[in-house]
Amino acid sequence: MVATLADSCFLRACHGLPTDTTPVWFMRQAGRSLPEYHRARAGTTLLEAVARPDLVTELTLQPVRRYGVDAAVLFSDIVVPLEAIGFGVDIVAGLGPVMERPFAGRADLDRLRPPDGEDLAHVTAAIRQLVGELDVPLIGFAGAPFTLASYLVEGGPSRHHPRTKAMMLGDTALWGDLVDRLAEVAIASLGAQVSAGAAAVQLFDSWAGCLSPDHYRRHAAPASRRVLAAVAGMGVPAIHFGVGTGELLEDMAIGTDVVGIDWRVPLDAARARLGAGVAVQGNLDPAACLAPWEMVAAEARAVLAANAGRPGHIFNLGHGVLPETDPAILERLVHLVHDEGRSAEP
Amino acid sequence: MVATLADSCFLRACHGLPTDTTPVWFMRQAGRSLPEYHRARAGTTLLEAVARPDLVTELTLQPVRRYGVDAAVLFSDIVVPLEAIGFGVDIVAGLGPVMERPFAGRADLDRLRPPDGEDLAHVTAAIRQLVGELDVPLIGFAGAPFTLASYLVEGGPSRHHPRTKAMMLGDTALWGDLVDRLAEVAIASLGAQVSAGAAAVQLFDSWAGCLSPDHYRRHAAPASRRVLAAVAGMGVPAIHFGVGTGELLEDMAIGTDVVGIDWRVPLDAARARLGAGVAVQGNLDPAACLAPWEMVAAEARAVLAANAGRPGHIFNLGHGVLPETDPAILERLVHLVHDEGRSAEP
Repeated sequence: MVATLADSCFLRACHGLPTDTTPVWFMRQAGRSLPEYHRARAGTTLLEAVARPDLVTELTLQPVRRYGVDAAVLFSDIVVPLEAIGFGVDIVAGLGPVMERPFAGRADLDRLRPPDGEDLAHVTAAIRQLVGELDVPLIGFAGAPFTLASYLVEGGPSRHHPRTKAMMLGDTALWGDLVDRLAEVAIASLGAQVSAGAAAVQLFDSWAGCLSPDHYRRHAAPASRRVLAAVAGMGVPAIHFGVGTGELLEDMAIGTDVVGIDWRVPLDAARARLGAGVAVQGNLDPAACLAPWEMVAAEARAVLAANAGRPGHIFNLGHGVLPETDPAILERLVHLVHDEGRSAEP
Repeated sequence: MVATLADSCFLRACHGLPTDTTPVWFMRQAGRSLPEYHRARAGTTLLEAVARPDLVTELTLQPVRRYGVDAAVLFSDIVVPLEAIGFGVDIVAGLGPVMERPFAGRADLDRLRPPDGEDLAHVTAAIRQLVGELDVPLIGFAGAPFTLASYLVEGGPSRHHPRTKAMMLGDTALWGDLVDRLAEVAIASLGAQVSAGAAAVQLFDSWAGCLSPDHYRRHAAPASRRVLAAVAGMGVPAIHFGVGTGELLEDMAIGTDVVGIDWRVPLDAARARLGAGVAVQGNLDPAACLAPWEMVAAEARAVLAANAGRPGHIFNLGHGVLPETDPAILERLVHLVHDEGRSAEP
């Protein structure tokens, strides 16, 4: 089983190796746009669903069955480890994670500790069940320290991150301690997922693109690099992803195997910035999937053309599947990528 | 008066000419963070305020008086011309523009026509009153066709612009007609503002950064260029601004005098991409202004250092003033820029 997975086109592409076909999966493939997802989740909050290994297994498997994607991604959320250590998090439908008491100062550091095996027992149970049923690699994930810190400090999703940036610039010692704690949370969570069977991990720095390159380098990258360095020791490839990160790509590439690229940067431009040592994931605009199929196909072919057959390309959207997406479009998209996305020898 | 204004450091910088000091103004300087603004606007909706030339004059003058900025910007909103032609727009506090009936298809094109002198009589009356009282140039503005189209199609502000992109990709003929109409709306609105006395204009393409470079070039840039070409014939400089537009800067620079840069792209990188023929405006992170003054000063000095004394720099934030901003910080910021921002000869 392990030997088979290591030969999977997804894991080979993570390592920059040639593949028979371009692997494809979709961020947020589990959920939102799938009718079978809404049926299975009916009457269950997201955190209640995450607490039930049987349901997590079903929700994680659904898109693999329907789409034939080359990787599964664990049904979870980046705040699950924070909820597991009792920080006090709710996930409000249509809004996102909301903190009962936002992180306001040094005293709140005591509320943050790395989750242990017992805290994450529901997560690891689901992963062990999943790896017994899957014939494609399972991707685990964690939130990067900056993005988690923004949720903690703002108290929820934020467009401008005002409190976060004020703390980051105004109290660098407290900020450094906060992101260090969150790096430990991410490392413990990813370690537990990999020990249970996750074959790759993605580090989501969803909000990093709101930072100037200087701020990213000084106040976000060091803690993320601690996480990536720990993942390197776990023996699985890492994907490092953010949105609106065109100016940050070179910095985000340090210490990772794969960089996730949103649709704002064409893959050829991303490749030129990153050089040959790192694989890329992306980058079809999720909103393009709402157009008629002929247009989606043209857009997908443009992504493949921009990569020009270079090994080390994992096809994905540039961000998560939008709830309005027709699953039939994603199904055809997987077929198109598999049919037309064969990579050339390097 | 006109001769004096043409010699103003703001207009000289728009044209890339050396100045004794770096000019500075702030997007959204009129409003939100000023206590005198909240007092003057109490009990008045934004559209009611825009309809009263005396109040528009007062709100436009307030930040000039308090901060000593080098340009005034008309108190208005990019949807004002749409409201003026009876499209049916409301501006909801804390949310933004909302359409009574969103743009849904070809029949809705008939609801869009360029505003005439009578439609904009309240706007031009305010401008005439203002230019009699101001001793700095007045900046008029309009929404770029893509950004206005997004509001019309989505029916309000949108994070992912799903309907807009689906229409843009799925019905290019309808989309082309829509943005052409909106270009005519912007041209008529800017023409009226300049005739009444606006000395420069800013074209706001606030949402352009959600587009891939290919989509921007094909579906947004042509209509914006029609607007910029018309402005070139009006004899005033144009500033072309968007957020998250790092990959679009070269395209946005065509046909404009100044490109607005958000904080994600350092000014030296922006200058390198744009070449010497275009001036730049920006680009302090608005959220940085929420930090203690010493940090704000360091950030402002970093912006000036990145420009390295090159002529053709207008200091500004990378986006609008955040409501949480302390006006005293902006006041000190203007002094710092004036004291330390003198440009060298080219």
